[in-house]
Amino acid sequence: MLEIAEFGHILAPQRYDAQLPKLRARLLAAHFALRARKFPVIVIVSGADGAGKGELVQRLNEWLDPRGVETHAFWEPSDEERERPEYWRFWRAMPGRGRIGIFFGSWYSTPIIRRVFGKIKAGKFDAALDRIAGFEKMLTDDGALLVKLWLHLPKKQQKKRLKKLEADGRIAPGDWKHFKLYEEFTAVSDRALRRTDHASAPWHVIEATDRRYREITAAEILTTAIQKKLDDTAPQPAVTTAIRPAASVTKKLKGDRSASILAHVDLTQKLPEAEYSRQLAAQQTKLSKLAWAAHDAGRSMVLMFEGWDAAGKGSAIRRVTQAIDPRLYQVVGVAAPTDEERAQHYLWRFWRRLPRAGHTTIFDRSWYGRVLVERVEGFAVPADWGRAYAEINDFEEQLADHGTVLCKFWVHLSPAEQLRRFRERQHVAYKQYKITDEDWRNREKWPDYQRAVDEMVSRCSTEFAPWTLIAGNDKKFARVQILKTIVQRLDAAL
Amino acid sequence: MLEIAEFGHILAPQRYDAQLPKLRARLLAAHFALRARKFPVIVIVSGADGAGKGELVQRLNEWLDPRGVETHAFWEPSDEERERPEYWRFWRAMPGRGRIGIFFGSWYSTPIIRRVFGKIKAGKFDAALDRIAGFEKMLTDDGALLVKLWLHLPKKQQKKRLKKLEADGRIAPGDWKHFKLYEEFTAVSDRALRRTDHASAPWHVIEATDRRYREITAAEILTTAIQKKLDDTAPQPAVTTAIRPAASVTKKLKGDRSASILAHVDLTQKLPEAEYSRQLAAQQTKLSKLAWAAHDAGRSMVLMFEGWDAAGKGSAIRRVTQAIDPRLYQVVGVAAPTDEERAQHYLWRFWRRLPRAGHTTIFDRSWYGRVLVERVEGFAVPADWGRAYAEINDFEEQLADHGTVLCKFWVHLSPAEQLRRFRERQHVAYKQYKITDEDWRNREKWPDYQRAVDEMVSRCSTEFAPWTLIAGNDKKFARVQILKTIVQRLDAAL
Repeated sequence: MLEIAEFGHILAPQRYDAQLPKLRARLLAAHFALRARKFPVIVIVSGADGAGKGELVQRLNEWLDPRGVETHAFWEPSDEERERPEYWRFWRAMPGRGRIGIFFGSWYSTPIIRRVFGKIKAGKFDAALDRIAGFEKMLTDDGALLVKLWLHLPKKQQKKRLKKLEADGRIAPGDWKHFKLYEEFTAVSDRALRRTDHASAPWHVIEATDRRYREITAAEILTTAIQKKLDDTAPQPAVTTAIRPAASVTKKLKGDRSASILAHVDLTQKLPEAEYSRQLAAQQTKLSKLAWAAHDAGRSMVLMFEGWDAAGKGSAIRRVTQAIDPRLYQVVGVAAPTDEERAQHYLWRFWRRLPRAGHTTIFDRSWYGRVLVERVEGFAVPADWGRAYAEINDFEEQLADHGTVLCKFWVHLSPAEQLRRFRERQHVAYKQYKITDEDWRNREKWPDYQRAVDEMVSRCSTEFAPWTLIAGNDKKFARVQILKTIVQRLDAAL
Repeated sequence: MLEIAEFGHILAPQRYDAQLPKLRARLLAAHFALRARKFPVIVIVSGADGAGKGELVQRLNEWLDPRGVETHAFWEPSDEERERPEYWRFWRAMPGRGRIGIFFGSWYSTPIIRRVFGKIKAGKFDAALDRIAGFEKMLTDDGALLVKLWLHLPKKQQKKRLKKLEADGRIAPGDWKHFKLYEEFTAVSDRALRRTDHASAPWHVIEATDRRYREITAAEILTTAIQKKLDDTAPQPAVTTAIRPAASVTKKLKGDRSASILAHVDLTQKLPEAEYSRQLAAQQTKLSKLAWAAHDAGRSMVLMFEGWDAAGKGSAIRRVTQAIDPRLYQVVGVAAPTDEERAQHYLWRFWRRLPRAGHTTIFDRSWYGRVLVERVEGFAVPADWGRAYAEINDFEEQLADHGTVLCKFWVHLSPAEQLRRFRERQHVAYKQYKITDEDWRNREKWPDYQRAVDEMVSRCSTEFAPWTLIAGNDKKFARVQILKTIVQRLDAAL
């Protein structure tokens, strides 16, 4: 793709001066219009050393409204960044809807540099590019506008630029070293561009020899892209649009409940009191030690609890937290998102709570809300929850790649047992706050939820992040099972 | 204060078992009630080594609702924390309204340890305690409930505990070293407790010899404190209550406009075009280099812009950002707070945006909104904005202590010049978005705002954070003045 950008484009000063005011006015107008339309714009500025990326970023900042734009450079990661999966630093830099984020360097930098210097092989490089393509698709599917600019310099021009930078004392260490690898850089970058050039997130290669040409071209691309998106009459992803799942879905399931994955959970399993006390204590002691061992080893852990209402998630979490030093864990109760969270992709609120090295985050309900309650209640349109499976799998793979120990629990129970517990809650004074009308409504949708759970478990039970189905009719049995699973997984990881 | 906690309190197991269920139910009920009442609870757990702080924190976590409580331990600061003023890590850990934050270790730890080991003298120690007292007052004034628990161990008991910990292999490095300094620790801690023991944030010293006694006592103190606060009929700080400033205030000022500090700003100052271009370029070149020098030196900078509507803040900020590499600054436009920000003290949203080492944050409007728009428009009650001056001075002193270069600009202009600009905005197409009805309404309140500015400048112009009043009738003059000030301050700091 890069060879096309060696035409020798130059923009004469008079033409630059003539074009600029109108272009700036259009760009600024688009930026203001963006606020009301509530989608984020992510501008990636990449390209060759000495191609003027810094100057371009500075110019864009000058032309945009400073209060609506933020620039992020990704230098050496901080220790807080190193302790999380690689993409954490990009997630934390994401602009909210209505804002522009300029990414000076991005998720492309590390794979390209590692590939050029032979630190990763072709296969791993391609895998990294596929992850990028998936990540970008996820962003654009969610409504984000991604504008990817690549500033290309022909070899002779780069040499000239580096000499000039050197004369000005502004050359970066490593620039000449990179120059010697010009061909490798070009080949690797070219592959990166081709493999991540999709209709929803296309690359724009800009010949960077002439400052005026590259600035006007970049601003023109950005302006046009924002305007096009603003004019786009396609509906924005409507998180709150109530589209009901097709009735047939429900019917089909009702007739064939035995087909459910959950039917394979043996709900008759029980643990007598004495045995429970003994096993609980034993597992908690193990977990307590393992949690400190994980801390010392810098391994982090994510525990995630989903399940039917009244399945005993809360009391199971308590048995887990009893065993872990409170300095080592945080419990995140997933309720309505805050407005900062609503301004971002739905996974953002989970990314932001990922634990530091050696720590644990416990999610009471989770990112699976997208394919459970949001699906069943029609809060997410089918296109949204439909693609969530792949997004979630990628998210969890990143956790696994980072070495985070991830346990995902679905606490199952029978409709009859749920009914018994609902009634108990209604009749015991200090449990009344735990039962609401919503619980009864959800209960009526059992078949819909069951279908959603089936699909979720089958599509998101991966080798790196398997689902664990817990038999919850007997709370004691469930708690010990959960503890045993965590202990086992943690022990295997350390 | 500590000697009072050497009575040999012990709670028999039967009594513990008898009291616990009721106490737990009360504590949990208080925790649930808290959610609706929307004030934060900060529990500080401090005290002697081996006094069972960890166990107590664990127990409280067990007894509270896990989704409504978060525990923070303050171990070695991360690099992101070290690069900000000392209290940044405490601010980022603050629980929002309706939540409980348990602080295992706190702002007390560093001063006490440094004093015991002779790293700071008595005067500096007292100053640190005064800062703590001020900080805690600020939190409680804002409606927070602060529960400060000190677990005390008589010397003999501490020796016993440490020996037991040693036998169990659970002794921390330094514990014996600290023990040798038992008397110093006790004396220093005692001073810390006495100096920070205020009616609104009292210390509770708990004899920690007996586990059951200290746990029941701590839970009882916490429960009672939350219940008392819940029962307290005093109105919560009402951020949005509309109380108008007394009419007399306005009248008095109208009659004596010359008394204003702003009257001393010579608004006739001008810069001819040629001179402006020359000076602007010269100052921008200097700032550009200094910003990189500050980056290399790890010095951070905070630039803060306040001023009348249409005074030219925005265009002045542009002249500053033109000079700084976009990788080194962020512009924060201060508009309506997000709901996460509303759940915190009003300074929280500014603390969270403080720059890392070597970086700059530019605030377009700022924490002074509390004593300007919130005061004049009656969004804050007099008690709230009245104490804000001291809170702001302390905030800025912490920035200065950290070595952050802070520039505070008030861009002044005459009412006549403002009127001219408002009219121009109405008549020039691309400037119309800049003028709203609110601007006209604000203009009518000029005398009220002037009085607020006067008081703000006189009360918050400190030696460590002086206000710079900018003559803004001529935009060119103003921009160069602002750049010169920043260059001068930065140059002096490096």
